[in-house]
Amino acid sequence: MSATKPHPGWRSKIHTIIYGTHTPAGKLFDIVLLITILYSIVIVMLESVKSYDNKYHSFFDISEWVVTILFTIEYILRIICVQQPKKYIFSFYGIVDLLSTIPKYLSFFILDTQFLAVFRALRLLRVFRILKLIRFVGEANNLTRALKQSRSKIFIFIFFVLIISVILGTIMYLIEGPENGFKSIPQSIYWCIVTLTTVGFGDITPQTPLGQMLATLIMIIGYGIIAVPTGIISAEYASTRGDTKPNNQEACKNCGVDIINSDAAYCRKCGTKLDNE
Amino acid sequence: MSATKPHPGWRSKIHTIIYGTHTPAGKLFDIVLLITILYSIVIVMLESVKSYDNKYHSFFDISEWVVTILFTIEYILRIICVQQPKKYIFSFYGIVDLLSTIPKYLSFFILDTQFLAVFRALRLLRVFRILKLIRFVGEANNLTRALKQSRSKIFIFIFFVLIISVILGTIMYLIEGPENGFKSIPQSIYWCIVTLTTVGFGDITPQTPLGQMLATLIMIIGYGIIAVPTGIISAEYASTRGDTKPNNQEACKNCGVDIINSDAAYCRKCGTKLDNE
Amino acid sequence: MSATKPHPGWRSKIHTIIYGTHTPAGKLFDIVLLITILYSIVIVMLESVKSYDNKYHSFFDISEWVVTILFTIEYILRIICVQQPKKYIFSFYGIVDLLSTIPKYLSFFILDTQFLAVFRALRLLRVFRILKLIRFVGEANNLTRALKQSRSKIFIFIFFVLIISVILGTIMYLIEGPENGFKSIPQSIYWCIVTLTTVGFGDITPQTPLGQMLATLIMIIGYGIIAVPTGIISAEYASTRGDTKPNNQEACKNCGVDIINSDAAYCRKCGTKLDNE
Amino acid sequence: MSATKPHPGWRSKIHTIIYGTHTPAGKLFDIVLLITILYSIVIVMLESVKSYDNKYHSFFDISEWVVTILFTIEYILRIICVQQPKKYIFSFYGIVDLLSTIPKYLSFFILDTQFLAVFRALRLLRVFRILKLIRFVGEANNLTRALKQSRSKIFIFIFFVLIISVILGTIMYLIEGPENGFKSIPQSIYWCIVTLTTVGFGDITPQTPLGQMLATLIMIIGYGIIAVPTGIISAEYASTRGDTKPNNQEACKNCGVDIINSDAAYCRKCGTKLDNE
Repeated sequence: MSATKPHPGWRSKIHTIIYGTHTPAGKLFDIVLLITILYSIVIVMLESVKSYDNKYHSFFDISEWVVTILFTIEYILRIICVQQPKKYIFSFYGIVDLLSTIPKYLSFFILDTQFLAVFRALRLLRVFRILKLIRFVGEANNLTRALKQSRSKIFIFIFFVLIISVILGTIMYLIEGPENGFKSIPQSIYWCIVTLTTVGFGDITPQTPLGQMLATLIMIIGYGIIAVPTGIISAEYASTRGDTKPNNQEACKNCGVDIINSDAAYCRKCGTKLDNE
Repeated sequence: MSATKPHPGWRSKIHTIIYGTHTPAGKLFDIVLLITILYSIVIVMLESVKSYDNKYHSFFDISEWVVTILFTIEYILRIICVQQPKKYIFSFYGIVDLLSTIPKYLSFFILDTQFLAVFRALRLLRVFRILKLIRFVGEANNLTRALKQSRSKIFIFIFFVLIISVILGTIMYLIEGPENGFKSIPQSIYWCIVTLTTVGFGDITPQTPLGQMLATLIMIIGYGIIAVPTGIISAEYASTRGDTKPNNQEACKNCGVDIINSDAAYCRKCGTKLDNE
Repeated sequence: MSATKPHPGWRSKIHTIIYGTHTPAGKLFDIVLLITILYSIVIVMLESVKSYDNKYHSFFDISEWVVTILFTIEYILRIICVQQPKKYIFSFYGIVDLLSTIPKYLSFFILDTQFLAVFRALRLLRVFRILKLIRFVGEANNLTRALKQSRSKIFIFIFFVLIISVILGTIMYLIEGPENGFKSIPQSIYWCIVTLTTVGFGDITPQTPLGQMLATLIMIIGYGIIAVPTGIISAEYASTRGDTKPNNQEACKNCGVDIINSDAAYCRKCGTKLDNE
Repeated sequence: MSATKPHPGWRSKIHTIIYGTHTPAGKLFDIVLLITILYSIVIVMLESVKSYDNKYHSFFDISEWVVTILFTIEYILRIICVQQPKKYIFSFYGIVDLLSTIPKYLSFFILDTQFLAVFRALRLLRVFRILKLIRFVGEANNLTRALKQSRSKIFIFIFFVLIISVILGTIMYLIEGPENGFKSIPQSIYWCIVTLTTVGFGDITPQTPLGQMLATLIMIIGYGIIAVPTGIISAEYASTRGDTKPNNQEACKNCGVDIINSDAAYCRKCGTKLDNE
């Protein structure tokens, strides 16, 4: 259906409603979409609670069908109104949009509905599309950029945490042994990460004095090195702060990508000229 | 009673005692009020301990009545001595003051005294009124301003934490399932937040190797992203620091609002001329 | 005995050995004292382990007597060799030194030896005396100064944490109630602090969906506000850093106070002229 | 065998393959080594899981022999191709390389194979050798330098945490006593560190109101002072950031040490002239 090229006039109108945020119709569309997404996620959650599912099973089933059909219509409209549908379909949001619609259709073929719940939870990612149009985006961009810039540092840090956990976890396994709950090296490593990150479930705890001394060491290491990612991100965040401008909040008509720079004359992805309406 | 307009002379004196902090009477009033508030909160707490309540029930009841009557008198005096009582009554502190007095009166009509305990705990908010008159206010203002400025960033951050929790919680539910304590998706999400925030109660713990691997991932994510709010608030706090002046520590006679700028000639809320005594 | 004024010559020698760190005898004294303190603390700990105490009771008893007598001699020597013994006796370290010696003497009169263990643990504070003479002091001073400067901010922060805990703890008590482990308001507040500080023992956990939702809120608040003290101390620490000079590592002969500034000509406490040997 | 001095020509070639990263053979060597190391660690872990060990014992045994022989060959080649083998043998990586090979040989003499698992886990340290050749090294150097510079501060901090734990742990032991799970002072100190670092296993929890109040104090202290190492490392990290250059990624032919400065003409360790091929 993406092959049909409808009249630019009404296609442009749909584009304004779906991607734009300035017109009343565009705003209404965003709000309705946001509510539908949140509603569908609440349904997925409540369905998993046995007592609710027994009572309201048919209501949940109908709700799910209504949401699925609405999302299917929206998906088709999005394909129609952008000028390069292929770019949209294989973009991140295009795939998320598709995955949001198919789980219910798949339920005809796959009986394990629990497995489909994950795909349905992916709908939550769609909330970002709407939220990115509002004023918080500048902040989110700042955070994302700080995270991206400190990526390699965080990789080193996690690698360091894992190596400490493997070595100390192995030693804990030798000290405590299976009789005190440390059944294998992988489980001891799991316990070591639980302790190092200061989560401390308490399902496995050292019983021997030597094990408790080593556990103490692990905790103090964990308590101390929590400062490392904080220092990294603080420093990166401080350096990226204040460099952002408010977003244009518009999308390219051709490929649907966001226009970040408000004075851009051409789309940075596909090069289409922007009319800056 | 707020309609009666008493003579400005003694009304002004009461105002000085209740809102002022320079005169000995004003200081004494603040100290007595602080002790009464803390005393009434301790009573609320001890009443909830069964063994104490059985022994000292009548003592707690009398204490509560004494405190309630004292707060009622204070509330009436506050209404009388400000020039625009309506502004005070519908202000934040006006409502808190009212809610501090009514629970005991309501106990004539409502038998569920436990429900009233929350309203009585609200009295703790009144402590702020007195504390804001002392030297810590400058610091508190700094903190509040830093928190306000990073509001949208913290909103994004919490939203991000919730989305991670919903998606990973759903996956954990599918991996572990009801037989390992993950009874429903909402409960799995609850567990995921418990783990991500490094609280780690340990009432629900993953039992399967795959579940433990994902739990490890969640912990490391949580351990890593704790740096994000720290970085945000550190940066904001650093930029707001040092901009504050010591407070005037006086309140407007007309509407009871604090005078922040010591060189202010008119109240910033109601415009009443300040005499700067 | 502090009244006896011995000849300045040998008194000065003892002063150099006890307070000085430059001479070989002074270094030896410090090392012996450090070992004695650590040894006495290990004895206190091991005595509390039932199985060890049954086996080695007499050994622990003799060790304790030897340590007590050594500390008594040292305490007397310190009083003799400073010029103003009263200032030393009533200083922080003077009181700690005294408390380190008396527990064993008190054991003649008080039979509850467990109670005395706390006083004996105070000996650990004596380690600071020796450590403050070494190179880490500059860092410790930096930290102490940063903590002192952010004292009022940390007070506000803890106060804020306590108020949140009282209000949310009371609400949790009403939601969960005694049947789910929240037996009284004080205990609910205790649980709330356990959760807010991300400790999460797991001895009490919410069982109702509403309680779990509120618990989630408490955790996210706790996870978020952990950034506040970090931001405060980071900012203060950054501003105090780099202002410190290496310590003179000497003590005033008259009152025993440390000489912080290496170019000081007079003791900042008692005004005695320093000879800067 | 390190005594044999082979012809510089082929020795130089082996050096380029083992230590170099520019040639295809050098890259292949690094990748094969990395896979072998990770494979051997996975084998160590899986061997400890009883159910896997019963099934695949002979496979694990053969794998371990293959890995051991490969590591032995590599170790011998490294000794041969560096010009000063003694410096390599007694360097950190030389010892790690040796410890990676001997556990399996020792299994002829020592029957406690669990004890050998720790030595085999040390192989993980070898991963650093390869990783240090890739682009993350600059970041890791930054982190290591920041950690080294804040070493004495972190020492003071850990010392401070330990002293608080010893004193508060002793008090908790006296308040709660053996009947509430605080069996001895060392165990109470262990509990205190578990609480102070916000790990909170929950295997031991205070039962008396007084104990819970003190526990609350410990938690708030722990929650507050977590900011101290963060502040320290943030400040140090911020000051070391941006001073690093990309690494030369080559090693000295004589002693095997890394060449950090790309414009270095002589090895900073042994002074050998570098040819900068």
